[in-house]
Amino acid sequence: MSASVAKSDLLNAAVREVGIAIDKAFDSLLPVPDDARARLYEAMRHAAIGGGKRMRPMLVKATADLFNVAAESAVRVGLAVECIHVYSLVHDDLPAMDNDDLRRGKPTVHKAFDEATAILAGDCLHDLAFEVLIDPRTHADPFVRCELVRALAVSSGPAGMAGGQMMDLEAEKSGFDLPTVTRLQQLKTGALIGFCVEAGAILGRIPPEGRTSLHGYARDIGLAFQIADDLLDVEGDAHLAGKALGKDAAAGKETFVSLLGVERAREQARMLVDQAKAHLHGFGAEADLLRAIADYVVERDR
Amino acid sequence: MSASVAKSDLLNAAVREVGIAIDKAFDSLLPVPDDARARLYEAMRHAAIGGGKRMRPMLVKATADLFNVAAESAVRVGLAVECIHVYSLVHDDLPAMDNDDLRRGKPTVHKAFDEATAILAGDCLHDLAFEVLIDPRTHADPFVRCELVRALAVSSGPAGMAGGQMMDLEAEKSGFDLPTVTRLQQLKTGALIGFCVEAGAILGRIPPEGRTSLHGYARDIGLAFQIADDLLDVEGDAHLAGKALGKDAAAGKETFVSLLGVERAREQARMLVDQAKAHLHGFGAEADLLRAIADYVVERDR
Repeated sequence: MSASVAKSDLLNAAVREVGIAIDKAFDSLLPVPDDARARLYEAMRHAAIGGGKRMRPMLVKATADLFNVAAESAVRVGLAVECIHVYSLVHDDLPAMDNDDLRRGKPTVHKAFDEATAILAGDCLHDLAFEVLIDPRTHADPFVRCELVRALAVSSGPAGMAGGQMMDLEAEKSGFDLPTVTRLQQLKTGALIGFCVEAGAILGRIPPEGRTSLHGYARDIGLAFQIADDLLDVEGDAHLAGKALGKDAAAGKETFVSLLGVERAREQARMLVDQAKAHLHGFGAEADLLRAIADYVVERDR
Repeated sequence: MSASVAKSDLLNAAVREVGIAIDKAFDSLLPVPDDARARLYEAMRHAAIGGGKRMRPMLVKATADLFNVAAESAVRVGLAVECIHVYSLVHDDLPAMDNDDLRRGKPTVHKAFDEATAILAGDCLHDLAFEVLIDPRTHADPFVRCELVRALAVSSGPAGMAGGQMMDLEAEKSGFDLPTVTRLQQLKTGALIGFCVEAGAILGRIPPEGRTSLHGYARDIGLAFQIADDLLDVEGDAHLAGKALGKDAAAGKETFVSLLGVERAREQARMLVDQAKAHLHGFGAEADLLRAIADYVVERDR
């Protein structure tokens, strides 16, 4: 068996395992109540269960595994970050934002339910993230839980994901240059990816000065991920992607692909992935899942 | 000077003090950045600064004062709960929800900016609440910060405020009876008011079994507050209220007033306030601000 087959087996096994664990956790966290809130919980379940590759929970798990963190801790932190990711998709898909009808191959929440329910379901998943993190089952030490909450709040708010989304809205109005698009994406997708890797280190009680190489890894795969997304937006298969494509060009937004061209963008993504893996040189086989995720980020077709 | 004048002086002084502290804190937390996120921060400032009576931060302060909690801790927790309250107003005012043009005498955020910015500004204030709570300046002990985050996440999510808002949306479709309207309001406004009082006790390191009378106080003023709101919706002055009135009746929603009639609703609110104050019998003059807030809840004209 070649090394690359072994690595993709490792990835596939982790995708399966994490996917099942996250779906199971959402299912048990969100029982539909027998009252007028039923519709809200159904909308949260529609958004949260059975979707996506769970790349962010995978990153938490892969980093936590470097430091022998208990599996339950990693799953719960992965669940929290997925709550944030899913809430942001629900809000970003709204008519006032990106106005998307399809997400992960299903109708978006405001299509399957209605806009008001989608706004509330997003808000509730947002709360759920912090409720999950702060629970003692996530980690026995309140210092660790505090550090996780702080890191998640910062990386998802105006200095992170939501700030990046605001820049993305502004991008339709003004032609951004490469540094600005880079900054936008570092906030919009990079900050939360950075949290995942940071969270693994926090759970492993690695002090901030010991996290530099992991930060470098996260920064590089975050950008590579976005370049790959831009390439898929131009060249991808909407059916496989489970969402509408070609939207950035239609909206007149600058992307890595519009600014660099397809070939240079592809090269840049490849280079970033190599660089991401180079940051892991201090780790042995225990970092193979992180390496496999880095490769997956640019090789994926959805 | 009569006792009631003294009590309203106490209230007015606290309203001024808390109002200034909260505005100052928002101002320093939200400097407008010199990049494409400027509009987001401006929208957050528009929503958060200079509005309302800050009743929730007042409740945190009034309860914290019972237990000699440091002023900075009480202000920061008040700021966090106000972040949640303001974010919920911004989202509830959206066209897909209550579709309001006016809030606290100013255009709502989606009117002054646009819908997408309003959704994001709400999301960011939501994050800010947790970022403020988890900061060591809120309390040195991470156990206390964890307890605050847990309580805020639960009281603002589907088992609290947002769940109540969902019930409120459903109320337009089906005629709710009195127990269901009561439950709706206990979630929609009661849960966050309960958090404020709970937070004062958490900061004061009062164990859960010592919080019973405060829970009773919060439950009663929460309902009294909502009944007074329903009365203002029918009888109030839209100019003083700084928002549109008469909307519940127009939407065909059952309220305390539609179910009880004006006179019985007013009696009920008065009775709840008396009951709320009776819960404070174990406290002396140090609970006068809580007593004054209880009176204010039903006497206010906005």
